[in-house]
Amino acid sequence: MPTNSDRFAKTPEPPYYAVIFSAQRTEGEHGYGQMAARMTELAVKQPGFLGIESTRDAEGFGITVSYWSSEDAIAAWKQHLDHKPAQEAGKKVWYVDYQLRVAKVERAYGKVKS
Amino acid sequence: MPTNSDRFAKTPEPPYYAVIFSAQRTEGEHGYGQMAARMTELAVKQPGFLGIESTRDAEGFGITVSYWSSEDAIAAWKQHLDHKPAQEAGKKVWYVDYQLRVAKVERAYGKVKS
Repeated sequence: MPTNSDRFAKTPEPPYYAVIFSAQRTEGEHGYGQMAARMTELAVKQPGFLGIESTRDAEGFGITVSYWSSEDAIAAWKQHLDHKPAQEAGKKVWYVDYQLRVAKVERAYGKVKS
Repeated sequence: MPTNSDRFAKTPEPPYYAVIFSAQRTEGEHGYGQMAARMTELAVKQPGFLGIESTRDAEGFGITVSYWSSEDAIAAWKQHLDHKPAQEAGKKVWYVDYQLRVAKVERAYGKVKS
């Protein structure tokens, strides 16, 4: 039985913020995997970063939810200079369509084995 | 190039609510696909339902985000009698781990071709 508990973000008690990013990938790799890994590595180091959950199916439709302590932390990450080229390439090369939503998490429950 | 624009929820201008459900599936089918399809069909008909986005990778890690007009609409769907058996089977049979977060969407942007 798969456990995969590291796929879940270990977030604190709410309130905190979520960035819900849904995207349909274009066909072909175009350096996506490498850049995505680098962006996650960088995001994790940002002030206010709380965690990330991400998955994508065989059709290339993916959802990534990153969790942050505040809206300011989200704004700072959006403006981060090393993040900008990835955002541009996302719009131009990697994503057919995408949608980004910023939301305030008010309640959370579940069961995640540690 | 895949378009798959129907995979995106066509939500109105914020504010509205999101239920972010992350889950690791157990191995084996155990009637999951049929129940999941039936629950989506039923959710779509509920008052206040705005849309749903869902994806799962080959490891069985999935994220489903459903969008709702209000917290009351979310509470009513949680309590819906036909939804309860699926919630129970989720905990006991289908999910190794899961996490559910209720969040208020404050901002949204993106590019989705219709």
